[in-house]
Amino acid sequence: MRRKLFFTGLIVTFVLSGIAHYAHWNEMFQFVVSAIAVIFVAGFLGQATESVSHYAGQRLGGFLNATFGNAAELIIAIFLVKAGSFETVKASLTGSIIGNLLLVLGLSVLMGGLKFKEQVYNAKLADHNSTLMMMAVIGLFIPAIFVTAEHFSPEADRFLSITVAIILIVCYLLWLIFSMITHKDMLADSDDTSSGHGEEPIWSKSRSILYLVVATVMVAFVSEWLVHTLHGVSSRFGLSELFVGAFVVAIVGNAAEHSAAILLAMKNKIGAAVEIAVGSSLQIALFVAPVLILISTLFGPTMDIVFSPIELAAIGVAVFIAKSVSSDGRTNWYEGVLLLMVYVILGFAFYLV
Amino acid sequence: MRRKLFFTGLIVTFVLSGIAHYAHWNEMFQFVVSAIAVIFVAGFLGQATESVSHYAGQRLGGFLNATFGNAAELIIAIFLVKAGSFETVKASLTGSIIGNLLLVLGLSVLMGGLKFKEQVYNAKLADHNSTLMMMAVIGLFIPAIFVTAEHFSPEADRFLSITVAIILIVCYLLWLIFSMITHKDMLADSDDTSSGHGEEPIWSKSRSILYLVVATVMVAFVSEWLVHTLHGVSSRFGLSELFVGAFVVAIVGNAAEHSAAILLAMKNKIGAAVEIAVGSSLQIALFVAPVLILISTLFGPTMDIVFSPIELAAIGVAVFIAKSVSSDGRTNWYEGVLLLMVYVILGFAFYLV
Amino acid sequence: MRRKLFFTGLIVTFVLSGIAHYAHWNEMFQFVVSAIAVIFVAGFLGQATESVSHYAGQRLGGFLNATFGNAAELIIAIFLVKAGSFETVKASLTGSIIGNLLLVLGLSVLMGGLKFKEQVYNAKLADHNSTLMMMAVIGLFIPAIFVTAEHFSPEADRFLSITVAIILIVCYLLWLIFSMITHKDMLADSDDTSSGHGEEPIWSKSRSILYLVVATVMVAFVSEWLVHTLHGVSSRFGLSELFVGAFVVAIVGNAAEHSAAILLAMKNKIGAAVEIAVGSSLQIALFVAPVLILISTLFGPTMDIVFSPIELAAIGVAVFIAKSVSSDGRTNWYEGVLLLMVYVILGFAFYLV
Repeated sequence: MRRKLFFTGLIVTFVLSGIAHYAHWNEMFQFVVSAIAVIFVAGFLGQATESVSHYAGQRLGGFLNATFGNAAELIIAIFLVKAGSFETVKASLTGSIIGNLLLVLGLSVLMGGLKFKEQVYNAKLADHNSTLMMMAVIGLFIPAIFVTAEHFSPEADRFLSITVAIILIVCYLLWLIFSMITHKDMLADSDDTSSGHGEEPIWSKSRSILYLVVATVMVAFVSEWLVHTLHGVSSRFGLSELFVGAFVVAIVGNAAEHSAAILLAMKNKIGAAVEIAVGSSLQIALFVAPVLILISTLFGPTMDIVFSPIELAAIGVAVFIAKSVSSDGRTNWYEGVLLLMVYVILGFAFYLV
Repeated sequence: MRRKLFFTGLIVTFVLSGIAHYAHWNEMFQFVVSAIAVIFVAGFLGQATESVSHYAGQRLGGFLNATFGNAAELIIAIFLVKAGSFETVKASLTGSIIGNLLLVLGLSVLMGGLKFKEQVYNAKLADHNSTLMMMAVIGLFIPAIFVTAEHFSPEADRFLSITVAIILIVCYLLWLIFSMITHKDMLADSDDTSSGHGEEPIWSKSRSILYLVVATVMVAFVSEWLVHTLHGVSSRFGLSELFVGAFVVAIVGNAAEHSAAILLAMKNKIGAAVEIAVGSSLQIALFVAPVLILISTLFGPTMDIVFSPIELAAIGVAVFIAKSVSSDGRTNWYEGVLLLMVYVILGFAFYLV
Repeated sequence: MRRKLFFTGLIVTFVLSGIAHYAHWNEMFQFVVSAIAVIFVAGFLGQATESVSHYAGQRLGGFLNATFGNAAELIIAIFLVKAGSFETVKASLTGSIIGNLLLVLGLSVLMGGLKFKEQVYNAKLADHNSTLMMMAVIGLFIPAIFVTAEHFSPEADRFLSITVAIILIVCYLLWLIFSMITHKDMLADSDDTSSGHGEEPIWSKSRSILYLVVATVMVAFVSEWLVHTLHGVSSRFGLSELFVGAFVVAIVGNAAEHSAAILLAMKNKIGAAVEIAVGSSLQIALFVAPVLILISTLFGPTMDIVFSPIELAAIGVAVFIAKSVSSDGRTNWYEGVLLLMVYVILGFAFYLV
């Protein structure tokens, strides 16, 4: 029943946003309907990925989950890169990272904390995650400070950006090896939630693969339709593209993770919720962002890895408060409030830019 | 006997500084005598607050203690805001925060550490405190970086300052609910020092309330007398108002907390000492500073929440070293030395500005 | 046998680099041979220091070890200070700190981690070390931000630099008292590795002292020969003096520590390896750097303590990632990889300046 409703919503919004796009309907309507469609197809892609992962066995499955997890965002961003909207790409990457670390994590911790006085999870995993987030921040911070303070030439900027991108991807791949092969046991959650968001697959093997392909294609289409409307919508509401990229696109693109993490937290599986939120932001910083740098070299001018001071400040602030909240492996409602409050402050600040 | 001496000192210095003020005596004499009077009346206000808190019951009492704890500083600062000396206000807020985190905490840890090899306290409380301090730093840091890097208009600056002020106050009120109601037990110190600085009230209920009113009025007067002398004294000694605000005013305004915390540390109640030092700096960052922003809107131009780079650096540095020292719930003399050394470096740096 | 080979290498490279220097041979040859000679004599100086320390008794010995440990670097730097190459001095200090925290620590953790799944050591020591590194960063950060943001006059800059230098040296001396006298037992490694890299002395007492004197003189000579070639070599390869100072000189000057730490890590004595890497960088930041400031006042214009933004960023980044990796008293191969990756990123960035 629930699944039927989901598929109806998926198909209706997808078709509607396609018609709206090609028939040049009202831009605001295009934006709203394609945003809703993105939420549905991202959810569909997530389910298909999980189902395929299940059949692929634990290791390959974990890898699939880890790389397809932000597929929707990656595809949206590729269209933005192709359109040369480098600033909007960086804004949406920033928005995804802070959205995951502050909004998703904050809501999960708050909702879980309202139900349970204190929620506990494997502090070792939290420790590793925060070291990795630190790595991601360093990877984004060093190019920014060197390029700005030393007035790098465009060539030096390009060379450094590509180098850092490759290093971050290497770190990410080695992290997959570390967490899924050499030290898998050490990082497992004590209450076995690591497999908790897998459960039984809902489709057969061949259908899962078919759905994965279909979902990826659908994401590609709606992403382009959505990106197409951003300029009009932002100018109509007097919003900067920075704000639209960092908040609207990021919230839409991460809607699936949001709901999954919050539901897990309310079932007292806070470890799995933290894993989704932090893992997703790690993936964006260490994989999606550097891959976009490399992809941009195929289309023309290279997108450099130099984020603006306020983007770096937002990412740095989000990492520090999330690290401070999650470092002890225990969460409560107040910590959720703090994360959300930082998100609200950043939202106001970006809105006023 | 000791109490008699205290009251004699209180009345003599208060009356003397009043006469000095209205009779326009030597400005240097006015400054010294009103500074001593501030120490006495702040002490008196502290005792009256504690006594009233005792009768008010634990919850309301804790709340009273938490909000009246920095009443003297708040009142001094209101006079500075009224006089439009926004820079001196921010300097004195900065000075209060670093004075509590470095001087009060440093001296407590050092003096306690000279008597006891290692002092232990509830690390969970330390953990929460440091997350909250992080929140405070973020709340001050985001407006500074956005307003500066993006050249905000005065209206945007004003809007962001008021928004952040309201959010910080909400965080502070929710923290009171968290620490005094929903998670009171979790944060209690194992050696029950949390109630340790309450003891038996020295006055009857009605007398306590009377004294609280009298003390508040006295603080208001001496604060104005003291503020009045600052300009003359600082120009006479070639000191910047920044230095006077950040070091002289802050040390005078926090003298009561200083002595209380150090005495507790020497009785091996280091947990209570840390609570006073860190709690007081939290109160200034999350409550006093934002309240002053809101109050300033009543008098005329809004005081924005944008601190200068060196003030932010000083606060950031103080929070980081205090967090690093207190994060493990154990202290020793050397950690006290480090805190004090950072205070001395900052003192020299501010003196040279 | 092995010792014989070592002494042969020591004497041959020393004599050869002396001849090359005075006979004005090819500059590139001079550079290579004196660099190799520095590695040998630094190793010799290290052995002599350890041997003398052994006879001096635990306390004085520890002190000798702690102060002579970076003697080679100190002597190289003194020659650079005398030549007025303040920028190269700061670059080589920066390079030493990040070389120890990222390259030495990274290689040790990686090599140890490839052999052992997880290596454990006394987390209390790690905690203290990271607080001290924080102190060092603060000591370098405050002058930089105050002097830059407030446009300090050269006199104010000089005064602040000397003050901060003295305070850092005081912190270092008190740290020796803390770690070797008052809290020696608390910081000892559980598996007793702290005395592990002492072992039996290889020479008699009088011979050890003689060797210490001889080694110090030799270091002084080869250091001057090496420093003499830097300008020519860097201009020939199109490298900036910054890069040569921060990477080439630093790697050469720390070669002895590198090999010692890695060998210890592979024997599962990761605690001792961390102690060498972190201890050495602490010594440079809290002792060598400030001593050079004071020494510079003897030769003419004072070298100030203001590091450039990219140097501070490099040191800050290195301290944060090292702190994040070592704070839990456990290490694994992946943490080593992260440290090395940050080193590589910094290397590329400095190369491109």
